Amino acid sequence: MYEYSHGGNAVFEKGNNSIIDLSANINPLGIPLGVREAVIDEIFNSDRYPDNFSNELRHRIGMFENVDSNWVFCGNGASDIIFRLPRAVNAAKIMVIAPTFSDYERAAISYGSEVVYHTLSNNFTLEADFLDAIKYQKPDMVFICNPNNPTGQLVESRLIKGVLDYCKQIGAWVVVDECFIDFTQHVENYTCKNFLAEYSNLVILKAFTKIFTIPGIRLGYALCTNETLIQNLYFHGADWSVSNLAQAAGIAALKNAPNFIKQTVKYISVERRRIEQELARLGFKVFSAHANYVFFQNPYPFNLRHKLDKKGIRIRHCGNYHGLDDSYYRIAVSTTENNTKALEAIQYVGGFS
Amino acid sequence: MYEYSHGGNAVFEKGNNSIIDLSANINPLGIPLGVREAVIDEIFNSDRYPDNFSNELRHRIGMFENVDSNWVFCGNGASDIIFRLPRAVNAAKIMVIAPTFSDYERAAISYGSEVVYHTLSNNFTLEADFLDAIKYQKPDMVFICNPNNPTGQLVESRLIKGVLDYCKQIGAWVVVDECFIDFTQHVENYTCKNFLAEYSNLVILKAFTKIFTIPGIRLGYALCTNETLIQNLYFHGADWSVSNLAQAAGIAALKNAPNFIKQTVKYISVERRRIEQELARLGFKVFSAHANYVFFQNPYPFNLRHKLDKKGIRIRHCGNYHGLDDSYYRIAVSTTENNTKALEAIQYVGGFS
Repeated sequence: MYEYSHGGNAVFEKGNNSIIDLSANINPLGIPLGVREAVIDEIFNSDRYPDNFSNELRHRIGMFENVDSNWVFCGNGASDIIFRLPRAVNAAKIMVIAPTFSDYERAAISYGSEVVYHTLSNNFTLEADFLDAIKYQKPDMVFICNPNNPTGQLVESRLIKGVLDYCKQIGAWVVVDECFIDFTQHVENYTCKNFLAEYSNLVILKAFTKIFTIPGIRLGYALCTNETLIQNLYFHGADWSVSNLAQAAGIAALKNAPNFIKQTVKYISVERRRIEQELARLGFKVFSAHANYVFFQNPYPFNLRHKLDKKGIRIRHCGNYHGLDDSYYRIAVSTTENNTKALEAIQYVGGFS
Repeated sequence: MYEYSHGGNAVFEKGNNSIIDLSANINPLGIPLGVREAVIDEIFNSDRYPDNFSNELRHRIGMFENVDSNWVFCGNGASDIIFRLPRAVNAAKIMVIAPTFSDYERAAISYGSEVVYHTLSNNFTLEADFLDAIKYQKPDMVFICNPNNPTGQLVESRLIKGVLDYCKQIGAWVVVDECFIDFTQHVENYTCKNFLAEYSNLVILKAFTKIFTIPGIRLGYALCTNETLIQNLYFHGADWSVSNLAQAAGIAALKNAPNFIKQTVKYISVERRRIEQELARLGFKVFSAHANYVFFQNPYPFNLRHKLDKKGIRIRHCGNYHGLDDSYYRIAVSTTENNTKALEAIQYVGGFS
């Protein structure tokens, strides 16, 4: 049965117009300059179908990612692509990590794939036993979220390379969701982009949603060298899934992307450290995260989300993730002002001050 | 294997910037007043996720269609919903008409459903033998396109009621695609909306794309009284599939919808008759259509599309529809100016003048 299982919808609940929503992880620097103007200009072309193959956008993504534009498939958000993937490769068995982003599992169930879970141990890092689990389960497709949502943990490139090698042998696909990777420092040490040319069984997922702050507009993409997979992604979902407005927004967002990302990483790393330190000081168990959110466990016998909601702050309750219970929370790294308000509210509702 | 099989993409082909594209059927009156402004206003909210349930838009659609807003499911174009439907009901066998819109078949294949075809006889009207075919095949889901694309033929309400009755008995779903119905005169005699309350196995598909002239923005919806189906449509596809911009566009388009549709139907009916009469005069076999396009057969030994392409006019070649061959074409009813240009070009390339 369907149940909305994500953050980011607080403002649509009754009477919540002014809530500070830190339950979704969006870039606090806001929409990049030029994106709004590009969308406004493009509205006049809305009376024709969008380019089904997002040719100009794919060209720009290719330049931004330094890959061939034929390796790029654009979708109506990364989620659109996640739902196409199991069908595109006819995956009978799919392995997901627990906890992780819930859409991988839902997409697998929707296609009718068997879902097997690799539950992380208490520090939530993905370790060598993951490869053992893959060898035991022999899935057709493995989803790795790097950095993982909601834990913020990064996966070592060496481990992913081992997974790619083994999966290549058994004809299995490895999907690495890097939707949050551009928020991390030293991204070049963690991205799997350099593995693309060697591993045609690798699919990397990325999104404009988080880093370029346009979750409303919906735009994600996949990178893969396998032409048949790209064709199958087109086949197994609606045509024209990326609107002309989203294509224009994406093209504009990439114009100054390296600088924008650099500023973002700098801002996020300072604010994330501040939030982590303050939460740790208050006695919460903080797991050092590498994205634009902080993952922590509440040792106190109160429901932090409910208490914060009453103070106009929404954080992400993680009890509905496989492998987590109600004591885990995720909070977005937002603007300095919002973060300060959130930390003050946490102090207040916890009776710490 | 994937192959783009629709019209509407001429402008994205190399060197075709100035082509008049009559291969997709879009309202010649253009985007309704107020839609552009609403999208511009909404851009500033693109830094948050869209309302996953399109609550305000569903409310407005409910008022426009005179149905309960809980009967409405919004998607990223009607095609998005078409791809969710077979999975939402776990359809093992799906019946489609030939010729008809190709996405029903592709969505069925994508899910792994068996597809059975009911091939129309030479006048392309759906008749009582369709019900016999359903009784023989006993499909889990039947797609009816009304008026049918590309033929423009309407289906009698009585026939659909018979199909609904039988399908209700055997637990099968009937999907009636009414994406073009608002272009027809006396729509009240043909829409299945009045059957919704009685038949919980009925799903009606509609789109903003054609009638409200926003194919670029992507917005479609389904109407159904079955709550479980609506929940399953949410489950079997990505969340947030309708962008905040599409929701704003839809809300704005509905503000003056009855008047806009009235004007549209009047304009289309005059222009359609003019195109039909002229094509008939030139010796083409014209099938009386009830939407914003004209369907006809070319008795002459030349490829009309290729010849018109060279004159800067793109029409829809129908050879890739099941049940049609290369002699069939569809041409959109466009503005008076475009229609005149198209008719003059047809006269010229056919050597009629």
